[in-house]
Amino acid sequence: MTDQQTHTDVTVIGLGPMGSALAQAFLAADRTLTVWNRTPGRADDLVAGGAHRAGTVAEAVTRSPVTITCLNDYTTLHQVLDSVDGPLRGRTLVNLGSGTPAEARAAADRAAGRGLDHLDGAIMVPPPLVRHPESVFLYSGPQDVFDRHRATLATLGDPRHLGADPGLAVLFNTALLGMMYATLNGFLHAAALARSAGVPVPEFAELALGWFMPAVLDPAGIAEQAPDMEAGTYPGDLGTMRMNRDALEHITRTSVEQGVHSELPRLMADLAERAVAQGHGDENYFAMFEVFANRGRR
Amino acid sequence: MTDQQTHTDVTVIGLGPMGSALAQAFLAADRTLTVWNRTPGRADDLVAGGAHRAGTVAEAVTRSPVTITCLNDYTTLHQVLDSVDGPLRGRTLVNLGSGTPAEARAAADRAAGRGLDHLDGAIMVPPPLVRHPESVFLYSGPQDVFDRHRATLATLGDPRHLGADPGLAVLFNTALLGMMYATLNGFLHAAALARSAGVPVPEFAELALGWFMPAVLDPAGIAEQAPDMEAGTYPGDLGTMRMNRDALEHITRTSVEQGVHSELPRLMADLAERAVAQGHGDENYFAMFEVFANRGRR
Ligand SMILES: NC(=O)c1ccc[n+]([C@@H]2O[C@H](COP(=O)([O-])OP(=O)(O)OC[C@H]3O[C@@H](n4cnc5c(N)ncnc54)[C@H](OP(=O)(O)O)[C@@H]3O)[C@@H](O)[C@H]2O)c1
Ligand SMILES: NC(=O)c1ccc[n+]([C@@H]2O[C@H](COP(=O)([O-])OP(=O)(O)OC[C@H]3O[C@@H](n4cnc5c(N)ncnc54)[C@H](OP(=O)(O)O)[C@@H]3O)[C@@H](O)[C@H]2O)c1
Repeated sequence: MTDQQTHTDVTVIGLGPMGSALAQAFLAADRTLTVWNRTPGRADDLVAGGAHRAGTVAEAVTRSPVTITCLNDYTTLHQVLDSVDGPLRGRTLVNLGSGTPAEARAAADRAAGRGLDHLDGAIMVPPPLVRHPESVFLYSGPQDVFDRHRATLATLGDPRHLGADPGLAVLFNTALLGMMYATLNGFLHAAALARSAGVPVPEFAELALGWFMPAVLDPAGIAEQAPDMEAGTYPGDLGTMRMNRDALEHITRTSVEQGVHSELPRLMADLAERAVAQGHGDENYFAMFEVFANRGRR
Repeated sequence: MTDQQTHTDVTVIGLGPMGSALAQAFLAADRTLTVWNRTPGRADDLVAGGAHRAGTVAEAVTRSPVTITCLNDYTTLHQVLDSVDGPLRGRTLVNLGSGTPAEARAAADRAAGRGLDHLDGAIMVPPPLVRHPESVFLYSGPQDVFDRHRATLATLGDPRHLGADPGLAVLFNTALLGMMYATLNGFLHAAALARSAGVPVPEFAELALGWFMPAVLDPAGIAEQAPDMEAGTYPGDLGTMRMNRDALEHITRTSVEQGVHSELPRLMADLAERAVAQGHGDENYFAMFEVFANRGRR
């Protein structure tokens, strides 16, 4: 039951907004598709488009070499799979959902116990962007299982294999989302500061997003620091943690003075102070990585 | 004493790393340059390059139509200007330093009291990038004063006039720096999460900065939300604050589970919860702007 060719049967279990988008992608790629959903009516459009509606989870999983689950959480995943009495040996389960790395690892163990090959994945785009070749899907689990199903997974977007630890996909997903919220909050707080002096948001956005973010927060420039972070080396000759701590104090004071939210800059200033206290005062700002990693002084 | 031509006399007061870079830029542009610094020796290179060393602040300010001050803070600025007994009427003072909007406004008032025209500015680049045409310098104060000296200021980089309120330049500077720290922290915390599962920083950076930041955190995409923020309209049809609050709870739990810093995601999750409590639960994440602006429900 390999899957090197483009045309192999596939099953999708879970037809919420995301599962439905995944299933539609397989139909559009002329795959033989089987679907199952707790609320059967949600499969109607897919069945009208040529999908087979399985009567039970057992039928759904055994009809195809690979089954993709897209459910609300891991508890539901376990309930759904536990409803199958017989063996599932030889089939591959690709779970695409949200959870913690520990939940993904536990799911991999349970899948192994059932004789299933298993990949855990995370979807980095909303449903309308499924099927775009640049939409990134993260996967983790055994390399050979990923390689065997790469063609099927490529139907959904750009599949990236992160490693054998099944927790990696949800971990990367979580880390990247945290980065997104931090960045959005940075812009939203800055816009609130400017607005407090009567600056319309579009005018501030022009400078902050049209110039500052691409020019000063250039991702390629930040990436240059990665080897130093990995080595724990933070030369401070172009600017020190102490200077940055003072700047963050200044940002906090200005937020208070302007009457906007000040807890977020306050915490950032406290963290920089903690970095100084841990001996990073003369190093550059990227030494904050050590504070976030909870490693203390190396 | 207008300054429409490229060749006009200019004075620089304060020759730390930044003031020296500004002065060198004027020498390189063949301006007639006068300099003053508390520690006179710091002017030696500039004098060797053709600058005139003023013996007193009064001499420095009166020799040129425009004087640029680049001192450590506003307290020093006042000390330096108060050392001049006579009138300064008709000269223009361009102060380039760091402070709060209130300090900048107070400095503008004091300058007006001395009969000086005044601009307050902020430098968004380190000393080696002074003189690059793309290096942005922010200015605020009267439009006509800015227009009169635009050619002189363009010698230093790309001059942007933000408005008549003299506090705007330092406010924008502070807001943009806050955005920078928030974004860097987002990446550093995400890298710490990935590192906790053994992922080398360069490998994580490749995905986080090589793909995620440019693709998902595209500044132009974020800027599209600016008019809605200005209008206070946050349609939640593509994702709600409640969903984002849950995702932030999830990021916090994963941080705890992986043993990395969790206070920053904890505060972000609490803020999203506050937004829900204030009635933004069914709106999109940009409604967080209202929380940062301390405006409550509009
Ligand atoms: N939507 C997005 O933008 C997006 C983006 C990236 C990742 N994801 C992830 O994709 C997964 C699916 O998301 P979604 O947006 O499609 O909707 P969802 O609400 O997260 O999940 C809906 C699916 O879960 C099923 N389900 C819930 N409880 C069940 C139970 N006790 N037994 C059996 N089935 C149950 C639903 O069946 P019924 O139809 O019978 O209720 C439906 O098929 C989630 O893990 C989500 O985090 C979503
Ligand atoms: N360096 C940067 O990367 C950078 C970037 C953007 C903005 N800025 C801003 O530019 C301004 C200047 O920064 P900088 O890096 O050149 O160094 P700085 O250490 O902030 O300022 C040094 C200057 O202040 C003078 N000074 C300090 N106390 C004085 C006093 N009591 N009386 C008279 N003069 C006094 C020093 O004179 P002496 O030589 O006699 O000590 C020197 O000329 C600051 O406001 C800074 O925030 C700097």
